[in-house]
This record gives sequence, structure tokens and C-alpha cells, in this order.
Amino acid sequence: MKFSYVTHLHCPKCGTEYDHNQIQHLCQCGSPLLVDYDLESLKRDFAPAHLIGRSADLWRYHELLPVSDERSIVSLGEGMTPLVGMPALGAEMGIRQLYMKDEGIIPTGTFKARGAALGVSKAKELGVTELAMPTNGNAGAAWSLYAARAGIKASIVMPVEAPLITRTECAISGANLSLVNGLISDAGRIVAQAVAAHGLYDASTLKEPYRIEGKKTMGLEIAEQLGWKVPDVILYPTGGGVGLIGIYKALRELTEIGWIQDKMPRLVAVQAAGCAPIVKAWQEKKWESEFWPDSSTVAFGINVPKALGDFLVLEAVYNTHGCAIAVDDAAVLDELTHVARSEGAFICPEGAAAFAAARTLRADGWIADSDTVVVLNTGCGIKYPGTVQVEVPVLEPHDCIL
Amino acid sequence: MKFSYVTHLHCPKCGTEYDHNQIQHLCQCGSPLLVDYDLESLKRDFAPAHLIGRSADLWRYHELLPVSDERSIVSLGEGMTPLVGMPALGAEMGIRQLYMKDEGIIPTGTFKARGAALGVSKAKELGVTELAMPTNGNAGAAWSLYAARAGIKASIVMPVEAPLITRTECAISGANLSLVNGLISDAGRIVAQAVAAHGLYDASTLKEPYRIEGKKTMGLEIAEQLGWKVPDVILYPTGGGVGLIGIYKALRELTEIGWIQDKMPRLVAVQAAGCAPIVKAWQEKKWESEFWPDSSTVAFGINVPKALGDFLVLEAVYNTHGCAIAVDDAAVLDELTHVARSEGAFICPEGAAAFAAARTLRADGWIADSDTVVVLNTGCGIKYPGTVQVEVPVLEPHDCIL
Repeated sequence: MKFSYVTHLHCPKCGTEYDHNQIQHLCQCGSPLLVDYDLESLKRDFAPAHLIGRSADLWRYHELLPVSDERSIVSLGEGMTPLVGMPALGAEMGIRQLYMKDEGIIPTGTFKARGAALGVSKAKELGVTELAMPTNGNAGAAWSLYAARAGIKASIVMPVEAPLITRTECAISGANLSLVNGLISDAGRIVAQAVAAHGLYDASTLKEPYRIEGKKTMGLEIAEQLGWKVPDVILYPTGGGVGLIGIYKALRELTEIGWIQDKMPRLVAVQAAGCAPIVKAWQEKKWESEFWPDSSTVAFGINVPKALGDFLVLEAVYNTHGCAIAVDDAAVLDELTHVARSEGAFICPEGAAAFAAARTLRADGWIADSDTVVVLNTGCGIKYPGTVQVEVPVLEPHDCIL
Repeated sequence: MKFSYVTHLHCPKCGTEYDHNQIQHLCQCGSPLLVDYDLESLKRDFAPAHLIGRSADLWRYHELLPVSDERSIVSLGEGMTPLVGMPALGAEMGIRQLYMKDEGIIPTGTFKARGAALGVSKAKELGVTELAMPTNGNAGAAWSLYAARAGIKASIVMPVEAPLITRTECAISGANLSLVNGLISDAGRIVAQAVAAHGLYDASTLKEPYRIEGKKTMGLEIAEQLGWKVPDVILYPTGGGVGLIGIYKALRELTEIGWIQDKMPRLVAVQAAGCAPIVKAWQEKKWESEFWPDSSTVAFGINVPKALGDFLVLEAVYNTHGCAIAVDDAAVLDELTHVARSEGAFICPEGAAAFAAARTLRADGWIADSDTVVVLNTGCGIKYPGTVQVEVPVLEPHDCIL
């Protein structure tokens, strides 16, 4: 068996094919590219039993990943995050089987580590020495640290309002970090200019084709952790939407190689009421979204006014009979506290948005009590110290409690 | 096979035995208690092959853990943290096989989750409804969240100087949190008073016997991840020292059941120059430490002036031909940045102290270049935003980088 069964890249819009052994970004038509594998051979050669004894990280699926040479792997042990039962919360919402896929339990504390691990490993394999990217914080932190491990120089631009700790992560890794008085779209323009002027590798979301493959592993893991079955519903907090695109791709590939037989889970794109372009497009039955002006939400990671891969997100939602739903900031903050008190998990605001959406969809009857539901928590709460106000009594050593 | 092979508790000082089906704290002689298992039966019944296919968390070792009934388990998916190769750092230090056991990749972001998972699970099994503990921050955060998951009420007291984010973790879980103008020893006195006055379950370090069993799983995992071999040296940042006691206990139990045959690794207790009671005792060839006055270090988690289990730490160091070494704060901060830049890992100050110690011990020749060395990083750097000063340029949207 080969280490990877990657064959080429293709454009989901115009069908043009590209060589994965060369650096590629967008298609000539402007669309992001997707990675293809020899699924026919995998169907014949590859079985779940091959995974037995492999390390509990995302590289256990290397046949379905785009890195050709094992020596190119840049890993900090990312992946195989816990799929945690949420019985108390589920009972309260009226969902008998409620799970959290906890992407806070990963290097750098968010699911961005998956995209960075794949993206940096493939960049290393392709001989990249300098990359640049705009970020809402967590992706830049992850790419900075993985780039440092790979010996690749990184230039990162993020909004001044991005989570403070992500500045520290970029800076301590030795990345060239800048802040911008603006949104991620402004950071994107600055990076595009630097890429054009200096020939850097453009690691912007979906302008490089491999982070989707990293995010895809969330779908592979959910299926494996449920014993090669799929849940009825998966809820995903959607900014750029790469995770949803990746999960959909994972489940299609697993179906094609014969590892899962069930129907597809209904995929739910959860957005913030203050930034809901995908939800608006879905409500209007459109296949692309429009730029959302003056976007704002406490769930900063999903403040993305126009995603490059919006059409792929909408395709995944439509094709699985899923839906798109917006949640307001008050519901996000309520749910965040509620999940901690009932289940002991300190999650991120984006994850809390997805739990709040599950609550609403169950109340509306869109989710049935018998549905098995998986909610993606995309990062750990400890990266967001400002989301919760804490007032604590200060005692002197001779004081008493209770 | 039984779920757990726990038999009883015993006192390592006077030998008195206690029933693990009853709530127990210290021995009547004042010593912490240790948990015993039926290792004879395990040697006969239990083999590494039994672990195949079990979930990648610490409960995979349930036969060697003290929870009798699977339904008592309170888990957020903790354990099986990555054992990450550190080739660049190792090459620089002159250590050919250098690994980091990364305890930042775990619920609550520090290794305290292991002690909390075991401690809270066993407390639940014993019918506990209210617990109290003093903490330097991270243990309190972990116990608060696991207690919330178990439906147990928690009262936590921590120094005002404990990491800020740990306040948020305690508060969001619904724990009864207080700060004290003082050290963990002052917090301990307040908790002892509350325990005596209100009959709470005392979850103070080593006053409950089960967190050692949680920390023990670090040793079990290191051995499994190295293919049931042990490294030559393990370095551990030592405050209360429970992790070192646990790792030593793990390796002894694995030897007794025949799963490892090698000699013991040399165990190294790493402390801060500003709080080094175990190092002083080791240098003076004593078997107990003395209270370290006016202790101070940037590695707050190991600011423990007198550990209740000091004699067990020293026993582990002496019996394995290990050593104890102190590292100053400047070396800790240097190493923290260095590890991030060379390996892409943003570690905690306590972990950085252990890497700095490895560097010194290699330079001194105490570690040989052929030694396989495992360094414990006990938490993720993102819990410590203040350790690194970051100055970043702020651009306007029309500005350029590079």
C-alpha cells in the first residue's frame, strides 16, 4: 500500500485538473480547488482494520490525506479529539443522544490545528520557505506554530480585535505578526499585496487547497468514534465553513470506499445573527452568499462576512437536507455558561452558538428526540478569557468561607 | 475480568490498611495513602493486547484504576496526550531522542485534569455531594469542571496571584470560588477550617488518595507510547510532586505485572530556584524537605514551599538514581520562547523549567547523548498569557507589510 492515495486536484466549478506535486492556489476560474484520491484502489486495498494500533492522531488516516512522503509530516499530535457524551444537556434539550466533538483538546486549542498540520506539511513537501496569511486569530496562531516547527517563515495579519492570546502564540513562534485596524477582509488585502510583491506562499483560507483535508479528519474521526456509523445531525459553527466542507467531503469519501453505508447526516451551518450570510442565502434558496455589511458577534471566529467557499458550504447543506440557522449573542453567552454548569466543559463562543442552535432546532421539531446529534466545539474556552465576567470575594488568610 | 483490580489503601509510612469502599483521607499517622491492586491476578489475566481498540483516554487502563463501577466514571475524554518528538531542540541540546509528553492537550489545558477525573469519579462512587480544596489555580479549575459534570458542589480557594483564567474556569462551572491574599498554604488553612466546620469532602492534594492514580496514567501512557519500553530519563516540574509519585507508581506496577522489563528510568524532580525545598533535601541527602520561606517563581504551579508527599518524591528520585535540580526564572522564560521557535510548541512555564533542566543536565554530562529523554510539559501556554510580552505594529487597512 502507498502512504497516500492522492491523485490530483480539481476545480469544483469548472472541472479543470491540477498537479498536486506543484504549488497550486485558486483555479484559473477563481474557485478553490479540491483534492482527489484513488478511491477505487482504496475501496479494494484499505479497511478499518488497518487503523488498529495506529497513533491516536489525524495521521492515522494518511491514505486519505494529501501528504505523499511520511517524512514531510509536521505534527504536534493533533487529532482524535474526544467525542464526549452530553447526557445532562441532552436530557434538558430533549435529545437522547447528544455528543460534543471537542476540538479544544488539540495543539493550539482550536480545530485550526488540523488545517495547519496538513497545510504546513504539504507546503513543506512542496519546498515552501515563506508563507503569509490573514486570520481572525486562531488560524494564524496555529499556522505560525506549525510553520515554526517546519522551519518555514510566516507573516500573519489579524484584526486588532482578534483574541489577545493569539497574538502571543504568533509572536512566540517567531512569526512576522501585524495587526490591522479593520476586519479579516482588510487583513486579506494586505496579505494579497505582500504575496504579489514578494512571491510568498499564500496560505489564506481556501487559497491553498490542503486545510480542507485537515478539517476533513473531523468527519473521519466522528465516523470512526461512532463505530463507522454516522449521526443523524451534525451542527457546525460556520465562518469560512471549511470544517463543514471537510466533514461533507470525509463522509462522501467514506461512503465511496464502502466504510459507511448509512444515509448522510443532515449538516447544519450555524452562524451568528450579526453575521449570517450563509443563513440568508439558504433562506433565499441561493447557492452563493452576499457580503454581510457591518458584521459583529461575540463569536469572533465566525465573523466572516463573505466566505470564499460559501457555495461549497451551501452545497453540503442542500445535499444532506440540512439547514442554516443564526443565533444571537445573548443565546451564545447563555449557552456557554449552561454547558459548563451542566457538563463541566468550558467551550468557546463558536461552539456555544452551535449548542444554542441545537436547542432551537429541537424546540422547533427540526431535530427529533431520537436523533443522534453531534455538535462541534471548535476551540477551548480558555482562549477567550473575556467572554465571562467573574467577580470573586478576596479573603485575608484568617478569613472563613461558608 | 473485573473492571477494576483495586483491593485497598495502605499507608506508606506505618503500613496501616484502609477500605477503598469508604471515604478515606490521610492515615491516622498523618501520611497520605496509596492505592493497592491485585497485581498477582493482573499479571495472570491482563495483557497489552487487551488495550487494542479501547478509547484513546486514560480509562483504557481501568483495571489499574480505583473506580470499581464503570458507571461512576466522570470523563471529558482526558488522557493519551501526545508524546511528541523534539528533534530540533534535541539536536541543539545534544540529546538524540528527546520527547515531550504534552499535557496541554487535555480538558482544562493541564495535567490536573487527570487527577480531577479520577478524584471526582471516585468521590461520586463514594456518594460525595460537596467537596472543597485549596489550589494554585489549575487543579481548582479542573476539579470545579469535573465536579460540575458529576453534579458535585465544589468550594475552591486560590491565591490572588493564581492564573486569571483559572478564576473564570471555576466561576463558569458554578463553583463557590474565593481568592486569598496569600499563598496556597493560606488557602489550605481556610479550606481545612471549612472542611472541619461543614463536613465537606477534603479534596486537598494527597488528602484524598485518588489523584495520584490519575497522574499515574502519565507513566502508563509513556510506556505504552514507547512500545512498552521506558525512557532513560524522565524530567518532571515538581511542586506538590504528585505526578512524579504517580509515574513512579505506574512503572513499578507495570514491572510487577510483567509489562515492562527494563530498568527504571532516572526520575528528575525539577524545581524553581525561588522555591526548591525538594532540591535542597536531595542535595543534603535527606528523605523529607523543609518549608521554603518567601518562595517566588514565574512558574506559579510549582510554587509549593512544602509538599505533603515530599518523602514519596524523594523516594522515587533516590530509588531510580535520579536527581533534583533547580532552574532560575530567566532560564525558564528563555526556554519557553526557545521551544516555541524551534519546535512550534507553546508550553507552560513549568514545562519550560523541565526543558531548561534537561539542557543543564546534558551540559553537565548527567544526561548522555544516547539517553532517551522524556520531558513533561504539564500545561498549555495559552493559560499563561502574561508570560510573554508582545509588541506588534498596528496597520491601517491601506498599509503594507514587508
